[in-house]
Amino acid sequence: MGTLAELRPGTVVLVGGGPGDAGLMTVAGRAAVEQADVLLVDHLAPADALAWARPEAEVVDVAKLPRGAFTPQERINELLVEHARAGRRVVRLKGGDGFVFGRGMEELQACAAAGVDVRVVPGVSASVAVPALAGIPVTHRGLVQGFTVLSGHVPPDHPASTLDYAALVASRTTLVVLMGVANLHDIADRLLAHGMAADTPAAVVARGGHPDQEVISAPLRDIAQRAAGIAPPAVTVIGEVARFAASHPLIEETV
Amino acid sequence: MGTLAELRPGTVVLVGGGPGDAGLMTVAGRAAVEQADVLLVDHLAPADALAWARPEAEVVDVAKLPRGAFTPQERINELLVEHARAGRRVVRLKGGDGFVFGRGMEELQACAAAGVDVRVVPGVSASVAVPALAGIPVTHRGLVQGFTVLSGHVPPDHPASTLDYAALVASRTTLVVLMGVANLHDIADRLLAHGMAADTPAAVVARGGHPDQEVISAPLRDIAQRAAGIAPPAVTVIGEVARFAASHPLIEETV
Repeated sequence: MGTLAELRPGTVVLVGGGPGDAGLMTVAGRAAVEQADVLLVDHLAPADALAWARPEAEVVDVAKLPRGAFTPQERINELLVEHARAGRRVVRLKGGDGFVFGRGMEELQACAAAGVDVRVVPGVSASVAVPALAGIPVTHRGLVQGFTVLSGHVPPDHPASTLDYAALVASRTTLVVLMGVANLHDIADRLLAHGMAADTPAAVVARGGHPDQEVISAPLRDIAQRAAGIAPPAVTVIGEVARFAASHPLIEETV
Repeated sequence: MGTLAELRPGTVVLVGGGPGDAGLMTVAGRAAVEQADVLLVDHLAPADALAWARPEAEVVDVAKLPRGAFTPQERINELLVEHARAGRRVVRLKGGDGFVFGRGMEELQACAAAGVDVRVVPGVSASVAVPALAGIPVTHRGLVQGFTVLSGHVPPDHPASTLDYAALVASRTTLVVLMGVANLHDIADRLLAHGMAADTPAAVVARGGHPDQEVISAPLRDIAQRAAGIAPPAVTVIGEVARFAASHPLIEETV
């Protein structure tokens, strides 16, 4: 019970690795790592989880291949198919959940199109877990009945942005911004311009769940300036629930 | 590595148990269950995970105490504090993530107010994982840059609803509705009234991740009628990504 059924050769498993602490991997994800012949690993995947792999397993860091600063998604898709067709048990280990801005569906589709058996093990998403580890619930009874997770990778005024920031303000849901550190100033400005109260509580949580987790709390009007020195990865929470932000991690340290 | 540090007597750990399959518990959550003296368990928590508890551990089903159909939250808060003060290692095991409509913050606050040491182990949220297990990514590159998770427990026209359905439509995020089976007809009607296209793909995923998982796919205009016979728990996804719905679970069966 609680262990992944035997992983067949030629199969790909897309494993969500959680926000970074190996203790926040799933039991099924761990079982997949333990059985893998080859692991294709992102830079945000939990590094400590690789200790669970068999000594003879091949670990491919697909964030750092020679052809550039990162491996193009198309090449990752090809690698998954190539390794599976060679009869290996393939684990694709990502940070967070592979279906939350993780391009997991593209990998699943590439495998399926190639006739490769592919499975999904969902992970703990940073969008919910990182706020929690900073003491912030994305929902709270009597306060908010929903939350919206958005990518801050594309600035609000960019033609490629599909988001309607006026509607995000009007929705009255908690806003959780992933990949938004670089554009936090623009995002906060846009929310203010669409009428979100300047004193709305906000928090930036950097390195969530790690021993050096850092939480910056400030009203929306000040949050971008206050968090100006923060390096990614970080999760930003905007809404009444952000007032609960604690200054220390709440999870037990894992050993 | 990957195991919860020793759980001290008198400590409460709030563990998110994931959507129901014990394989989707976290490694740290499993370690907490293994060390617990007493477990306070919800009806949506993964039942198989209790096999990891010590034989002498006390299991309290807080969904079925004699005083009614469920245990009032205030009584659960009291029980957490009472057991911790008696020097026990207390695990509060919930379905999904305790901070996504799980009232986890109320339990954390009750413990903190009583001076009881309390920790949080985030879980795999059904809001992301159940769609994934049905083959639906809540985000997809080129299609959608955000998703909104809302409680469907309160009908759209109810005075207690804090949600603005016009804004939800305008936000152009994927909508994920939890606890919405009973009100699905009203929710779909309200979205249509606010201009969401009648042919927007939608899917209802019942018993996500369980061997009897069921996926109902239909355009928004028809989804409530098509899913009329579905019993909770179920997760509803509304948006272009729902077109990816598969008809079979994608996770390896756990054994």
